[in-house]
Amino acid sequence: MNIPLTSNPRVIIIGGGFAGLSLAKKLAKQELQVVLLDKHNYHTFQPLLYQVSTGGLEPDSIAYPIRKVLKDYTNFFFRLANVEEIVPKEKKVITDIGVLKYDYLVLATGSRTNFFGNASIKANSMVMKTIPQSLNLRSLILQNFEKALLKSDLNERNALMNFVIVGAGPTGVELAGALAEIKKGILPKDYPDLDIRQMQINLVQASDRVLPAMSEVSSKKAEHFLEKLGVNVWKDVRVLDYDGEMATTETDVYFNTATLIWTAGVKGATIKGVDDKKFLISGNRLKVNRFNQVEGFEDIFAVGDIALMTEEKFPKGHPMMAQPAIQQGKHLGDNLLRLMNNKKMRPFKYRDKGSMATIGRNKAVVDLPKFKFQGVFAWYVWMFVHLFFLIGFRNRVIVFVNWVYNYIRFDREARLIIRPYVKKVKNA
Amino acid sequence: MNIPLTSNPRVIIIGGGFAGLSLAKKLAKQELQVVLLDKHNYHTFQPLLYQVSTGGLEPDSIAYPIRKVLKDYTNFFFRLANVEEIVPKEKKVITDIGVLKYDYLVLATGSRTNFFGNASIKANSMVMKTIPQSLNLRSLILQNFEKALLKSDLNERNALMNFVIVGAGPTGVELAGALAEIKKGILPKDYPDLDIRQMQINLVQASDRVLPAMSEVSSKKAEHFLEKLGVNVWKDVRVLDYDGEMATTETDVYFNTATLIWTAGVKGATIKGVDDKKFLISGNRLKVNRFNQVEGFEDIFAVGDIALMTEEKFPKGHPMMAQPAIQQGKHLGDNLLRLMNNKKMRPFKYRDKGSMATIGRNKAVVDLPKFKFQGVFAWYVWMFVHLFFLIGFRNRVIVFVNWVYNYIRFDREARLIIRPYVKKVKNA
Repeated sequence: MNIPLTSNPRVIIIGGGFAGLSLAKKLAKQELQVVLLDKHNYHTFQPLLYQVSTGGLEPDSIAYPIRKVLKDYTNFFFRLANVEEIVPKEKKVITDIGVLKYDYLVLATGSRTNFFGNASIKANSMVMKTIPQSLNLRSLILQNFEKALLKSDLNERNALMNFVIVGAGPTGVELAGALAEIKKGILPKDYPDLDIRQMQINLVQASDRVLPAMSEVSSKKAEHFLEKLGVNVWKDVRVLDYDGEMATTETDVYFNTATLIWTAGVKGATIKGVDDKKFLISGNRLKVNRFNQVEGFEDIFAVGDIALMTEEKFPKGHPMMAQPAIQQGKHLGDNLLRLMNNKKMRPFKYRDKGSMATIGRNKAVVDLPKFKFQGVFAWYVWMFVHLFFLIGFRNRVIVFVNWVYNYIRFDREARLIIRPYVKKVKNA
Repeated sequence: MNIPLTSNPRVIIIGGGFAGLSLAKKLAKQELQVVLLDKHNYHTFQPLLYQVSTGGLEPDSIAYPIRKVLKDYTNFFFRLANVEEIVPKEKKVITDIGVLKYDYLVLATGSRTNFFGNASIKANSMVMKTIPQSLNLRSLILQNFEKALLKSDLNERNALMNFVIVGAGPTGVELAGALAEIKKGILPKDYPDLDIRQMQINLVQASDRVLPAMSEVSSKKAEHFLEKLGVNVWKDVRVLDYDGEMATTETDVYFNTATLIWTAGVKGATIKGVDDKKFLISGNRLKVNRFNQVEGFEDIFAVGDIALMTEEKFPKGHPMMAQPAIQQGKHLGDNLLRLMNNKKMRPFKYRDKGSMATIGRNKAVVDLPKFKFQGVFAWYVWMFVHLFFLIGFRNRVIVFVNWVYNYIRFDREARLIIRPYVKKVKNA
C-alpha cells in the first residue's frame, strides 16, 4: 500500500463515516500514524439521502471528499480500499489493494441494510444507504412514471405508481413524506396525461406506531402529518415477501407494486476476522466495553453503528444514528491519546441530544431530552441541525439554496434520470 | 405511445438540446400537437461538461428537466425514447417505445463524437458529450491518482498521471486548463505522498494552432495561457492510434498514458432512414435549405449540429455550437407557424455573436464580430454569458455559488468518485 513505516504507532481506521471522521480529527497532528480506509473517496451525509432520491438535492451536496478533511494532517494516509479480512493474531488488515499491519485498529464500518435473511426481498427491493443506491431510487421513481404513461393496462399502470416503503423509522417516514409532496406539487404538472391521484404511497410498519424509537406524542403527530399528506400508514403489518410484483404480509393486506423500498432494518457491517459469533450480539453489532474495545481484544476498537456498548440507560446499546457515532469517535480519539501517554482511558458516556424527523414542508417532530415539540418550529430546528452537521461550507450553502428554492417554488429540480436504473433479473 | 390523436397537425421534435428546446418554446400554445422525444429526461448544458469532469460543478446543476420546460404548454407531449428509425414514406418514427406518425418532423439530434473510424481509439478513450460520460471521466481522473499511490514502478505511476487530450477546440482547451488548475491547487494537498510535478497534461492538435475556429490573436493568447498553466501544447501532431497504454502519432512523438480524452471531432447524430449518403455531406450532417428543410423532403426539418445549412459567409455550414442551434430552433418555430397559416417561410440568416473559450482563472479569450479581447475581462464575460444561457434559475444560482467558492478558495469540491469507472476490456 506504499505507506511508510515510522517509529510512531499506526492506527488504522476502517470507515470515513461520522464515527471514523470524528475520530480522525482528534488524532490530527499527534505522534501517531493514522491510515483511514474507505471504499468511497467521500464522506456521505446519510440523513439527507432521501432528498437525493426524491430530487430535492444533488448528490454532490451531501458528499464531502475525505482527502479534503485530512489535507492539513501530515500524519494521515487515506487509501481507497475494500477491507476483506482482519487477522487479529498477526495484527494485519487484508484489503483489495494489499495487506497492512496495525498497532491499533478501529472499526467504524457503520451498518448495512438488514433483510433478515429474505433473499427475494433483497433481490427485488430498493435500499437507500449509499449515494449510488439513492440515485438508483431517484432514477427508478422517474422511470416508473415515464413507463406508466405508456401502459394502457390499468393494473400495470397503477403498480408502477404504487410505492411501498417498508419500515417507518426516520428514513421511511421522511421518504414517504417527500414522495407525498412530489405527488402533490410536481407530478401533476410533469405528467398532465397521467391521473396522478392513482399514485399510492404506502408506509408499512411491523410494530404499532411510526417512529418507534421516538416519543409517543411524536409518533402520533408524525402519523397525523403523514395522513394529512395522503400517505397510507399501515401499522402492525409485517411484510413477508416481495417478488418484484407483489408484496405479501402476515395479514391479508398485500400490495401490487413495481417499487418496494426497504428501510426496515440495519445491521452492523462486520468484517471477516472479527465477525465470530462470540463477538456479536443482536443486530450483528460488535460488543464493546465502555472504552470501545471489542470484547476479547485490547487493540481492536469499534465505534458508531457497528459497536454495541451498553450503558445503564441503554441496555440494548445506543441508537444506530449520527450522534452516538460522533461522540464515540471523539471520545475514542481522546482515549487513544491517553493510551499513548500511558494514562488510564475514560469510560464513554452517551449524552442523548434527542432525535428528530421531518415529514414535509413545515412538518417535523423533535424529541429533546426535556422538551418535545412538533410542527413549523420543529421543522426549522430540523433544518438548522442538519445544515450544522453537514460537512463543508460549500455543501451547506448549496443545500440551503436548494431548500429555499424548493420551499418558495414548491419544486425539486433534480428530477433527473442521469443513469437509468436497470432492475436486476428477478430471482426464481 | 399513448399520444392522443387530435385535429391539429403533429410536430415531432427529436432531441431536447439547444435547438430542440428553442423550437419547442416557439410552438407553445399554438394549434399544433408537439411531441418531443429525447433519450434523457433532461436538457444538458454541454458547454460546462468539462467542469463536471474536473470536479468544479455537480452534474445536476447543468441539467434541467425537460418536462419542467414544457409544463405549462398543454399542447406538448414528452416521451423518454430512443429513436431507431424514420420512415419518411409513411411519415412515421420508430422508437423503442412504439411507433408514431408525424405531420412534420424536426431532427434536433445534435452531434456525437467522431473517431474517424478508429475502433481502437473509440474503445480506449474517454469522451465528454453527455453527463454520464463526464462523470466517468471525473471518476477515472481521481481513480488514476488513487492507483498511482500504490505503484512503485515509476513508469506505471507516470502513465497514470499523464493526461492526453486530443483536439484543441474549446472543449479540449477548457479541459486542459481545468486539469492544470487542479494540478496546481488541489492535487498536491490531496496527495501529499505523490510527486504531482510528474503529472503531465498534453494537449494535442493536428493543425497549426489551438482554437482553430477562433481568431489568430485568440489562438495565440490561449496557447500562451495554456503554457503559463503548464500544459504541454503539441501542434501539427496528429494522433494515429491508442491502445489503452500508448498513443502514437504521425510524428515521432508518442505518449505513455492511461487516459486519453478524445475531443478531436464531432459528427451529426444521424438516424436510420434519413442517413442515406445523398442527404449527407461532410461531418455526417444533413444538408438543409435556408428553411431548415432536409434536402429531398418537404416535411422533415433539421436544426442545430445535425443540420448543414450554407450561407454566403458560411460556405461549409454554421459552426457546431449553441448559437446556431438556438437561432435555428427559434427561426424554424416561426417558419412552422407561418406554414400553418399558409404564409411563406422566411430564409434563416445566422447572426454571428462570436465565440469564446476559457482557459482558467482570469484567463479567457473572446472573439466578437467587431472586437476581440483576452484576459480577466474576457473571463468575466465568459462567465456571464454562460450563466445567462444556462437554463433555470436554481441552476444559475448553484453554478454561481460554486464558481465564487472555487474562485475564493482555489478549490473544487465535487472531486467525488460516486460511481467508479470500470474500463471496458481492451479490444484486440
